[in-house]
Amino acid sequence: MNANETKLAFASDYMEGAHPAILRRLMETNMMKTPGYGADGFSESARRKIREACQAPSAEIHFLVGGTQTNATVIDALLRSWQGVVAASTGHIATHEAGAIEFGGHKVLALPQENGKITASSVLACVEAYRRDENRDHTVMPGMVYISQPTEYGTLYSLSELTALSDVCRAYHIPLFVDGARLAYALACPANDVTLPDLARLCDVFYIGGTKCGALFGEAVVFPKPDTAPHFFTVVKQHGALLAKGRIAGIQFETLFTDHLYEQLGKNAVAAADRIRAALLEKGYQLALDAPTNQIFVLLDPAQLANLSAKIEMGFWENTPDGKTIMRIATSWATQPEDVNRLIACL
Amino acid sequence: MNANETKLAFASDYMEGAHPAILRRLMETNMMKTPGYGADGFSESARRKIREACQAPSAEIHFLVGGTQTNATVIDALLRSWQGVVAASTGHIATHEAGAIEFGGHKVLALPQENGKITASSVLACVEAYRRDENRDHTVMPGMVYISQPTEYGTLYSLSELTALSDVCRAYHIPLFVDGARLAYALACPANDVTLPDLARLCDVFYIGGTKCGALFGEAVVFPKPDTAPHFFTVVKQHGALLAKGRIAGIQFETLFTDHLYEQLGKNAVAAADRIRAALLEKGYQLALDAPTNQIFVLLDPAQLANLSAKIEMGFWENTPDGKTIMRIATSWATQPEDVNRLIACL
Amino acid sequence: MNANETKLAFASDYMEGAHPAILRRLMETNMMKTPGYGADGFSESARRKIREACQAPSAEIHFLVGGTQTNATVIDALLRSWQGVVAASTGHIATHEAGAIEFGGHKVLALPQENGKITASSVLACVEAYRRDENRDHTVMPGMVYISQPTEYGTLYSLSELTALSDVCRAYHIPLFVDGARLAYALACPANDVTLPDLARLCDVFYIGGTKCGALFGEAVVFPKPDTAPHFFTVVKQHGALLAKGRIAGIQFETLFTDHLYEQLGKNAVAAADRIRAALLEKGYQLALDAPTNQIFVLLDPAQLANLSAKIEMGFWENTPDGKTIMRIATSWATQPEDVNRLIACL
Amino acid sequence: MNANETKLAFASDYMEGAHPAILRRLMETNMMKTPGYGADGFSESARRKIREACQAPSAEIHFLVGGTQTNATVIDALLRSWQGVVAASTGHIATHEAGAIEFGGHKVLALPQENGKITASSVLACVEAYRRDENRDHTVMPGMVYISQPTEYGTLYSLSELTALSDVCRAYHIPLFVDGARLAYALACPANDVTLPDLARLCDVFYIGGTKCGALFGEAVVFPKPDTAPHFFTVVKQHGALLAKGRIAGIQFETLFTDHLYEQLGKNAVAAADRIRAALLEKGYQLALDAPTNQIFVLLDPAQLANLSAKIEMGFWENTPDGKTIMRIATSWATQPEDVNRLIACL
Repeated sequence: MNANETKLAFASDYMEGAHPAILRRLMETNMMKTPGYGADGFSESARRKIREACQAPSAEIHFLVGGTQTNATVIDALLRSWQGVVAASTGHIATHEAGAIEFGGHKVLALPQENGKITASSVLACVEAYRRDENRDHTVMPGMVYISQPTEYGTLYSLSELTALSDVCRAYHIPLFVDGARLAYALACPANDVTLPDLARLCDVFYIGGTKCGALFGEAVVFPKPDTAPHFFTVVKQHGALLAKGRIAGIQFETLFTDHLYEQLGKNAVAAADRIRAALLEKGYQLALDAPTNQIFVLLDPAQLANLSAKIEMGFWENTPDGKTIMRIATSWATQPEDVNRLIACL
Repeated sequence: MNANETKLAFASDYMEGAHPAILRRLMETNMMKTPGYGADGFSESARRKIREACQAPSAEIHFLVGGTQTNATVIDALLRSWQGVVAASTGHIATHEAGAIEFGGHKVLALPQENGKITASSVLACVEAYRRDENRDHTVMPGMVYISQPTEYGTLYSLSELTALSDVCRAYHIPLFVDGARLAYALACPANDVTLPDLARLCDVFYIGGTKCGALFGEAVVFPKPDTAPHFFTVVKQHGALLAKGRIAGIQFETLFTDHLYEQLGKNAVAAADRIRAALLEKGYQLALDAPTNQIFVLLDPAQLANLSAKIEMGFWENTPDGKTIMRIATSWATQPEDVNRLIACL
Repeated sequence: MNANETKLAFASDYMEGAHPAILRRLMETNMMKTPGYGADGFSESARRKIREACQAPSAEIHFLVGGTQTNATVIDALLRSWQGVVAASTGHIATHEAGAIEFGGHKVLALPQENGKITASSVLACVEAYRRDENRDHTVMPGMVYISQPTEYGTLYSLSELTALSDVCRAYHIPLFVDGARLAYALACPANDVTLPDLARLCDVFYIGGTKCGALFGEAVVFPKPDTAPHFFTVVKQHGALLAKGRIAGIQFETLFTDHLYEQLGKNAVAAADRIRAALLEKGYQLALDAPTNQIFVLLDPAQLANLSAKIEMGFWENTPDGKTIMRIATSWATQPEDVNRLIACL
Repeated sequence: MNANETKLAFASDYMEGAHPAILRRLMETNMMKTPGYGADGFSESARRKIREACQAPSAEIHFLVGGTQTNATVIDALLRSWQGVVAASTGHIATHEAGAIEFGGHKVLALPQENGKITASSVLACVEAYRRDENRDHTVMPGMVYISQPTEYGTLYSLSELTALSDVCRAYHIPLFVDGARLAYALACPANDVTLPDLARLCDVFYIGGTKCGALFGEAVVFPKPDTAPHFFTVVKQHGALLAKGRIAGIQFETLFTDHLYEQLGKNAVAAADRIRAALLEKGYQLALDAPTNQIFVLLDPAQLANLSAKIEMGFWENTPDGKTIMRIATSWATQPEDVNRLIACL
């Protein structure tokens, strides 16, 4: 089916269908009849399991379809018209969402980043600069903070970093939103010390990514406190993000949160990435940055690029001013050990 | 899983998962690796099959997730900022999309309807009124025409009606857009004389509904002429409507357009609806309108409503001024003959 | 300067510059230095005078430039994204604002009207229909009510009608917004029983029109209760509606609210319109509707139209199905008695 | 009228009313009757004079009210939904318009700047980076380029810089838009070599600022080629930017473009600014940057700030990391030589 089928496929973490347990469960439940729009029992059961995993018994949970959609919908639901969303200049909403946030009427207030991360102090500086600006009423108010865990560069916020960000946000009554499109690969990472209950405690809203973490599609938006975003159901509908057959998302998340599947599948990906990282370093390749999750950003000179590209399907990331190229190697829940072996043999 | 499980479930046509052939195919292909965002071979194969079914060899085809999303994205892609979309006052975009069209900046120019349909002459009158209005530059220009086939009331445009609408639209260079969320149930209807090739010939864009016609989700947008909507891929992304695992939609539509499955599953629904309609009339129930597809709108007095509601899960439609209630009974590809028998026995 | 200068000019109420007292005051104050954006003393003085005239000592008042702009800004400031604005189907926002409300993301929920007016009972029915609709979360919530005083057809809401509307709005916590683009001509009308203090008491926001009532431009938005619309200054800026030289609007409204000028200039217009109405009826012309303010809508057959159009510049309103034309004759603060005489002589 | 009236007022260039010639002309023409919305003879005459001054005989010209409004309207009229506007990170649209561009659905693509200016090579790099990005369909396309002449920092693009920018834009079919809110102060500057005909030749659209250059308000948008922005009148209306009494803007621009008034009044401001700049340097003050037009950005330590602020009303610009403050001193067409003398005496 695929022109590149003879290459080793490491271009992204969404190249397969779904974890087999999800497909099995879709099969088993297929002919049951349920009401639409998330009012079904599967979705309700998934919500219960997620609340439990997050230790957030009153959390309000909605299932959306994809990441850009979820970001645009959540941000639009929480911002007022005169506010913008603070994000790393490399944040997904600032770069790779085709202007979806601006389409909703809001400015992305980009902050300098390091390895894809912003700091509590830079957020504090941004908010304080706004408050001290005598012309602030002519500018966009920082109205929420968006971060990704893991970031677009595969790096992680530590618990202390996240706590510091949360503290600043709470001090200024600014919601903190965590994009967890790849959250399984953070949770599974040995270097990670931020748990789901931590996220529920420290954020105003976050989502648990399904699309890139074993589901056919789907993102579970968690508002630890109910009614954080009034009329969110209608906002979701208005954004075209409401599934008629909401159960299809519900069944997937119910499965992911049964028997710790979500954590398990993250571990496979991170273990594979760790093996590849070690091999790259051993063979003298240069990593563009040090990231511990399922994404590896390797800096290749033209010869290396030509050589590896012939054998391995990687993701293009960016060209550097000195003529090199940053390519992304991504593992996933579906990565097979033998493919990792073959990749390492190519290096 | 469902509080209403002991009732007969006829509330909507999206209460089950997907046609078993679709789930089987998802299983078979699950671990194959493909590129994302619709660039996979399954999606390409689905496009080929749809082009063939539509006799539209150069059609441009995109797979989106749901109906409101598809309407909002297509309309936003084709309208300029000073234009609005002409629709029946009962059109889905005018009533049940939570303002998704206005969220995109566009006015819905509602026309009077009969049984959910608008006429070529009313569109002509609307366009001519605009052109003759000396103050037209202070008003919203009719910039496209939206109809649904079947309509929200289950009725059908005949080929001559559709041709007349198309003629008016072409005379004024206004795109004609057909919402086919339930298209399978139109195509399968004995009373229908509008084929897929007719739609491709007469419309500028239409979509083939999957969500309500046997798929887990998905709508196939068909532009019979390529580049009708420039940069449509990016517009889809901006609307949060781009699937990372585009193959999941592609596989579903490939299956639906293999061995005439899409037409077959429509026939089951219409046959079931025909049996119910006949029984309702025989038992003296009053239909709110005469519709030949898979939706039945029955007008119930309070006693009838109480009686039937106790046994049958129906969809609430509207209260009438004289104290009656219009309820919707919907059949689908999944409706079982024995459930139809039981429903008829309740009447 | 004007191709039609030999015709009698009755096409609109914005054909001259400003009341001479305004120009004089602009002259006198021209070289004084003030801060921008409405923080000047003239604007502050105008606000004080308007608060006094409205008997609303804590009212928050902003000066904007034009009517469409004011409607779009106020409506956007008060609605949340999931809400729409209820208005007469003939309301300015529903017809002649080129989709400015939809550009801001909101649907106009049009109600049937009579002589340009909606009723408390129709608003109540609309709100109750929303609340009782089981699918309401898929629809646009009625989030505010917009009326015009006088209406686009020159008619007036009586105090009892306005009170009834206000009662419904308050019962449901829905803001009531009165577009007073021609408010001077309502206030000056013998048939009127709604005063500025009534408006301040019964509405959540209204504006006092300047553009059509003697100013070069300008509309004074009055929120009887401060902070009704949070960050309104920034919303005004975002809508491009903030004047750098805010004083120019302030000086005009200060003048209009000194020595009862605003009421006086309305009286001239209404007296002139009354004379014309009486003459039209006496000569056997048919009025399209009975309106007591400065606008006269006359229904002309083709011969009458040809005859009058040759001598009098009127405003085109609409063609009727039976081949007649509704034309508008408008008087203003600037209408001269001799021009009224000449017009009457033409009839 | 003004709490600061005893201070020397140099905070901005919009502290007075209008040039006396404008007020005189408004007086003379006040009671003439003209049609609305810019269809009057004064506006037509102003358009003729501007076309002549720009040596652009077929230019399409519209009069809007203010700068933010004009930027938002022009940008929205020229961009398609998938495009953003390239601007200096210090550009007015990127900083001080309260998100008006994003409210219209578009992203500002901020480029690094030097002294408020961007370069042809940085625009080229931005456009080429987009074209070479394999993921470009997931990003915002650079759809137009926005610069200010003079910039927000009072600096000027030279003819060769502007030509280079224009060349890049034309090579890539990207419109070039010049914000001329303070254009009079560029045209009047001895250091300037960019004329109105140059702007008309090199740009796709620009505007001639009135608000900050001697008018009560008003910006003249010039499209050198007609129909550059289709249905621009309606877009203006939709943005709430259409004046009912369009003549008020027309009369002002007719006056500004009679007997070279627009250039003359710029000269007064620049001459005053030159005297102040020389005195500041002579007294040992540090300028934040070297700008030749009517705005002076002076870097003050806390003692200097306290001293000068007690006597001179300046505009706050920004705090620097090292504890100093950048204040703006602005002159205008209305600046009196004796006030300049007094300011210099305070230094």
